[in-house]
Amino acid sequence: MIDNFIDKKFSDFEKEVFYKVIYSRRDVRKKFTDKTIDDKTIHNILNAAHHAPSVGFSQPWNFILIKDKDTRIKIKDSFLKERLKSIDYLKDDKEKLEKYHNLKLEGIMESDLNICVTYDHSRFGPFVIGRMTIEEAGVYSVCCAIQNLWLAARVEDIGVGWVSIINNSDLTEILNLPCNIKPIAYLCLGYVDKFNEMPDLEESKWLNRLDLQDVIFFEKWNDNDNTGWKEFKNIK
Amino acid sequence: MIDNFIDKKFSDFEKEVFYKVIYSRRDVRKKFTDKTIDDKTIHNILNAAHHAPSVGFSQPWNFILIKDKDTRIKIKDSFLKERLKSIDYLKDDKEKLEKYHNLKLEGIMESDLNICVTYDHSRFGPFVIGRMTIEEAGVYSVCCAIQNLWLAARVEDIGVGWVSIINNSDLTEILNLPCNIKPIAYLCLGYVDKFNEMPDLEESKWLNRLDLQDVIFFEKWNDNDNTGWKEFKNIK
Repeated sequence: MIDNFIDKKFSDFEKEVFYKVIYSRRDVRKKFTDKTIDDKTIHNILNAAHHAPSVGFSQPWNFILIKDKDTRIKIKDSFLKERLKSIDYLKDDKEKLEKYHNLKLEGIMESDLNICVTYDHSRFGPFVIGRMTIEEAGVYSVCCAIQNLWLAARVEDIGVGWVSIINNSDLTEILNLPCNIKPIAYLCLGYVDKFNEMPDLEESKWLNRLDLQDVIFFEKWNDNDNTGWKEFKNIK
Repeated sequence: MIDNFIDKKFSDFEKEVFYKVIYSRRDVRKKFTDKTIDDKTIHNILNAAHHAPSVGFSQPWNFILIKDKDTRIKIKDSFLKERLKSIDYLKDDKEKLEKYHNLKLEGIMESDLNICVTYDHSRFGPFVIGRMTIEEAGVYSVCCAIQNLWLAARVEDIGVGWVSIINNSDLTEILNLPCNIKPIAYLCLGYVDKFNEMPDLEESKWLNRLDLQDVIFFEKWNDNDNTGWKEFKNIK
């Protein structure tokens, strides 16, 4: 499968296709349709995830596919419990609290499929190239896999929402995870008819998108006026 | 820019383009050409990174672009020092040690551009939606951005190598990072004429790629024979 395109250079049109995937991916928590995701499509998406980079080629991920409603009800309960903690945290900030109440932050029950993505530190260990210096590098690999999954879902017209308002101890208990397995992401997947123009939190004016130029430095931290890079600042 | 494709459905050809990017991306540490990456292309790649998902839309990343040779010499020294630790760790495993010695694990000096990607926990904080429950979610967002960057580079014919054999204390000192800024990735970017068919560590038989089916479970951890998912196991 891969043999055919190792020399592959992408045309301008193909580059445009790729960037459209990147720019139109959204964190989706609502307006899922009733359409079922077929097995082949799930496989495509997970195969994209499985072809992410991993530190020392350790491939430390697992994917638990969840359709069972009883399991999801328990997960939803964990979300509701954690959400209350945020509401309590915001109790003195009426404006933020009102906005928070209006946000739809998960689609656990409404989506067709839930996927828990986990990290296995023991896989191919203890010596994993590149993980001896940076212990967390294995977790970073799992996150790269999640991003591949997310983009592949977009190209298949499937919305993905990452629910991080879930307690990991609850997940461990509900999904029977062994103690050495760390849950990294709980994802809700389902077809959508369209993807929002802006992220929900941008649209609701919770936060603005930063200007790209403001998160770039040159040569050292905080250097945004380096003479060697003066042309770069003019690019839009 | 985004307005035009929120309703975008991808054709079969476009899906194929996307999956080609995913499957032909490699961790590249050698055979960079002399070609300079122009500012517009760097901007494209970083803009893809900047459009990654982030917990609570916190966009907690910074990108430090590094061309300076003196800085890179210091980074390379950190790599060499950390590499010695791995060699010491493997001293009783002659076979692995020999393989390790033959691996090219970084392209710090040979690549056209180095990028350090960092995480800022304080950005838009202390209340970040979704980060109150899972503290590490901000770091996960930075990793998603790195994967976007990596894929965008591939589509531009640019190889990326993630060097994780670098001490974060050294990086902090060399790049003047404040104490609240965590370095997540040190990346080396340069044009290549072709991308390898297999990951270097697979080709050198350091490790094999796992079968995708072996990293998938159904409904709960370790369930790979669930009656509700019996068709899924037949998909190749």
